[in-house]
Amino acid sequence: MQRYFVNPRQWDGDQILVEGDDVHHMTRVMRMRPGDRVVCCDGEGTDLLAVLEDVKGDRVLLRVLERTPSRGEPAVAVTVAQALPKGDKWEWVLQKGTELGAASFLPVLSDRSVVKLDGKKADKKRERWQKIIKEAAEQSHRGCVPPVQPVVDWDGLMQAFSVCDRVIFAYEKGGVPLNQALADGPFQSLMIVVGPEGGFTSEEAEQARTAGALPVSLGPRILRSETAPLALLSCILYSHGEMGGEPL
Amino acid sequence: MQRYFVNPRQWDGDQILVEGDDVHHMTRVMRMRPGDRVVCCDGEGTDLLAVLEDVKGDRVLLRVLERTPSRGEPAVAVTVAQALPKGDKWEWVLQKGTELGAASFLPVLSDRSVVKLDGKKADKKRERWQKIIKEAAEQSHRGCVPPVQPVVDWDGLMQAFSVCDRVIFAYEKGGVPLNQALADGPFQSLMIVVGPEGGFTSEEAEQARTAGALPVSLGPRILRSETAPLALLSCILYSHGEMGGEPL
Repeated sequence: MQRYFVNPRQWDGDQILVEGDDVHHMTRVMRMRPGDRVVCCDGEGTDLLAVLEDVKGDRVLLRVLERTPSRGEPAVAVTVAQALPKGDKWEWVLQKGTELGAASFLPVLSDRSVVKLDGKKADKKRERWQKIIKEAAEQSHRGCVPPVQPVVDWDGLMQAFSVCDRVIFAYEKGGVPLNQALADGPFQSLMIVVGPEGGFTSEEAEQARTAGALPVSLGPRILRSETAPLALLSCILYSHGEMGGEPL
Repeated sequence: MQRYFVNPRQWDGDQILVEGDDVHHMTRVMRMRPGDRVVCCDGEGTDLLAVLEDVKGDRVLLRVLERTPSRGEPAVAVTVAQALPKGDKWEWVLQKGTELGAASFLPVLSDRSVVKLDGKKADKKRERWQKIIKEAAEQSHRGCVPPVQPVVDWDGLMQAFSVCDRVIFAYEKGGVPLNQALADGPFQSLMIVVGPEGGFTSEEAEQARTAGALPVSLGPRILRSETAPLALLSCILYSHGEMGGEPL
C-alpha cells in the first residue's frame, strides 16, 4: 500500500489533512479516489492506516482507521558520514542508504574535496537531498525520514565521532577486518566514515584514529566511494539481525 | 597502480602487446610514458607487474617484471540472477556487483518483464554490459572479469538453479531470514535471484521453491530491485569472510 509521511500539524484526532506534493502524488500519480486506502507514517514510529474521504482542490482529507507501530526502523542507528562525491553519486548513497536503514547522513567537505558548496547553494542542495530521502523512506517502509545533517569540514567530522558507540573508518590501505570491528557488538549507534575517490591519506587516517575512529578494511576488492557505504550498511545491519533474523 | 586485463594471445614470454581501447586509456587518459608501471591481470588468477617499454602507433609494448597471484577473487562464487530492471539500473548492478565480488550475472526476461530484447539487440547490450564489468573489475582489483550469461526466460532460470550449492530467492512477502539461509555455509557457489520492481508473485515463489530455491527475507525494509542484489552480495561475502577477516 502507498505510504506517506505526515507531520503532526497535519492531523486532528482521526482526520489527516494532506497538502503540497503528496496531494499531487495521491490524486494524479496514484489516481486515488474516495474509499482508497493509504498508510501514513508519523515519522516517530507509528503507522496510520487511513482511508481517503475527500479531495478539496489542493487538499486531501483522510480518516485514520488503525494505528500500528512502524516495523521499518532498525534498533541500531547508523550514521553515514561521507566526503561528498561528485555528481549524482551522493544522491544514490542517500536513496540506497535510506532503503537499507541508515539513521542519518553527514556530508563532509575536506580541503581536498572536489565538490564546493557555499551557504546558499548548500541549503538548496540539502533541501533536494532531504526530498530524495523522504521518497526513499516512503518506498522502503521506513518509520522515520533520516535527516541529512549540515555539511561539516574535517574538524567538524572529528567532533561528531564522540556521539557514537563506534566509528568505522573505511581505510583501504589497512585496518582491522570488518567482522572484527563488529565482533563486540551489537551497538546502539555506529558511524561509518567513507572517503573521497582515491580514499583517505595516511595522515587523515591517523587523525581519525586519534579522534577515536577505528580504521577498517573491507577486504581485497577496492570499492568505489559510493559503493562502500552501501556495503558497510548492509553488513552492519546484517550483523545486527536487521536483514531478517536475529543478531549474529 | 592502474590495472588492465590482458588476454593470453597478447603476450609472448615476458612481453605484452597491448592493442585497442587500453592503448587509448594508457597513452591518452593516463598519459603514460616509457618507464611507467602498470599491473596486467591474465583473468585467470595472476597479476603481472609490467613496465611500459615503447609506444608504437596504436600499440603499447610492456615488459613483465613480476608475477603474483591475484588477491581479488572471493572463494565463494556468487551468481546474480535478476529480472532485467529498466534503464541504467541493471548497469549499476553490474558495476557495483563486480566491485563487491560477484562471479557472474544472469539476466532474466519473464513474461511480466517491462524490458524487451530481441536477438540482435540482446547481443549488442551484452557487449556493452561486458565492457562495464571489465572496467569495474579493473578498478576494483578483481582477478577475473565476471561474465554476463546470455539472457534466459523463467524456465531457463529454473534450470540454472541446479549448478549452485544454494539458490537464495529474494522474496519480500516472506521467507527464512537471510542469516538462517547462510547458517549452514560456507558455500562454494550461491545464486541470488532478484525480482522485478514490485517483486515476485506468490506463484513464481512457489515455482522457484519447487525448482530448489530458498525464499529468503531481507528484513522489514523494502529494497528496490537494484539495491537488493548489492545488499545480498555484501552480506554473503561478509558472512564468508570476504569483507576483511575470516568466515563467520
